[in-house]
Amino acid sequence: MRLYVAAGLGQGLGIVPTREQTHYLLNVMRLGNGEPLRLFNGRDGEWLGRLDEVTKRSCLIALERQTRPQDSLPDLWLLFAPVKRARLDFIVQKAVEMGAGRILPVLTERTNVARVKEDRLIANAVEAAEQCGLLSVPEVSTPGPLSRLLDTWDEVAPGRRIIFCDEAAAPGGAFSTLEALATSQDNGPGPLAVLIGPEGGFSPAERTRLLERADTVPISLGPRIMRADTAAIAALAAVQLVVGDW
Amino acid sequence: MRLYVAAGLGQGLGIVPTREQTHYLLNVMRLGNGEPLRLFNGRDGEWLGRLDEVTKRSCLIALERQTRPQDSLPDLWLLFAPVKRARLDFIVQKAVEMGAGRILPVLTERTNVARVKEDRLIANAVEAAEQCGLLSVPEVSTPGPLSRLLDTWDEVAPGRRIIFCDEAAAPGGAFSTLEALATSQDNGPGPLAVLIGPEGGFSPAERTRLLERADTVPISLGPRIMRADTAAIAALAAVQLVVGDW
Repeated sequence: MRLYVAAGLGQGLGIVPTREQTHYLLNVMRLGNGEPLRLFNGRDGEWLGRLDEVTKRSCLIALERQTRPQDSLPDLWLLFAPVKRARLDFIVQKAVEMGAGRILPVLTERTNVARVKEDRLIANAVEAAEQCGLLSVPEVSTPGPLSRLLDTWDEVAPGRRIIFCDEAAAPGGAFSTLEALATSQDNGPGPLAVLIGPEGGFSPAERTRLLERADTVPISLGPRIMRADTAAIAALAAVQLVVGDW
Repeated sequence: MRLYVAAGLGQGLGIVPTREQTHYLLNVMRLGNGEPLRLFNGRDGEWLGRLDEVTKRSCLIALERQTRPQDSLPDLWLLFAPVKRARLDFIVQKAVEMGAGRILPVLTERTNVARVKEDRLIANAVEAAEQCGLLSVPEVSTPGPLSRLLDTWDEVAPGRRIIFCDEAAAPGGAFSTLEALATSQDNGPGPLAVLIGPEGGFSPAERTRLLERADTVPISLGPRIMRADTAAIAALAAVQLVVGDW
């Protein structure tokens, strides 16, 4: 069992879990004194600790030793249009599993979701990081309009190319997806952001604007229609395979 | 709206939907006479039809014209160890979206699922094929032991190489995943099967047996732990990208 905590981790320290974590450890998992846990906070690596001072409603985690040194997440962003509840949870969880270093929900013209619960996105990212053995939780940005993000791209993401998953792109066009990804680093390596649209696709104005940018790399995800969560995983897999850490 | 039917499709024919389809069309979607539908059966392409003779409990679909000629699914198999209910549904749906031509649930030594409902797997495959615009539903095989499938592999799948997603393979080893996939066709092109293990991984005996086969291509899906459904999508994406139809 792994837990993400905010506190600093170090030899001999005792960590007080949050109320939700305490409930989970004592009431759901029914753990008692001496049970081992692994903790990470994004800064101090992974630590082995043991439950201690367990009462009905409280406990402490006594740290024993560092089990893994801190590493960093891949410098790969996922921009995606929020979809409805269960699939939104999935996109965030899967993005973490696929090694996205930052997750940015973007509202597009055809985004069909009124309100995105930021807390819930973050909770999903934390849970996925705990489960898939990460040492950091990817940052989840506050949802905002895609157009505004593009207006400020050169300041917030200088030199970061956008891998634009373009549903309207013909598969097997002038460049295959593999060639497009492989040549995306030809003008010098640079950080990448994968952009996935809403289930209704991008508007013509959005497509034009994205394709006019010099640093956009349009790719096709093949001839079949995919749900947004599938497309996010598939696109991140393609990027990790060709220019990432696979 | 698209429906998969068993009956032959042709000019001027009237198709009687199944009881479940009739309930869905009339009671869930509340469609009436004249509403357009698209039908496919895996043999006769896609046809435009319209609801006709709608009563409280029955209806007919009158076919007007073929809208797409029949094509064939990619010759790509997915072998996977069944997981628990919701994620099992997901694996089948996602495999269809990713273009698997045949889906084979295989029971491995560490498969932790007692019974797999075949009907449910097939229903998931049909639903995904309807939603993602396919003209065929991939065949879903009866679940059986991986060991028995490997015993008979040369007869049931002659010349088909197994892309073995090996959790124990070090990422960035002697070959990268991209190189392993790209060179998998060096001895002549051949059909492929992607093999995904259960959440507990393959047993040492299973790994040894798979790695001893000449036609096994072991690949790594990177340094992070993935859920089985994520791994299935990611592996199919990698294969479609490098040697498939993207």
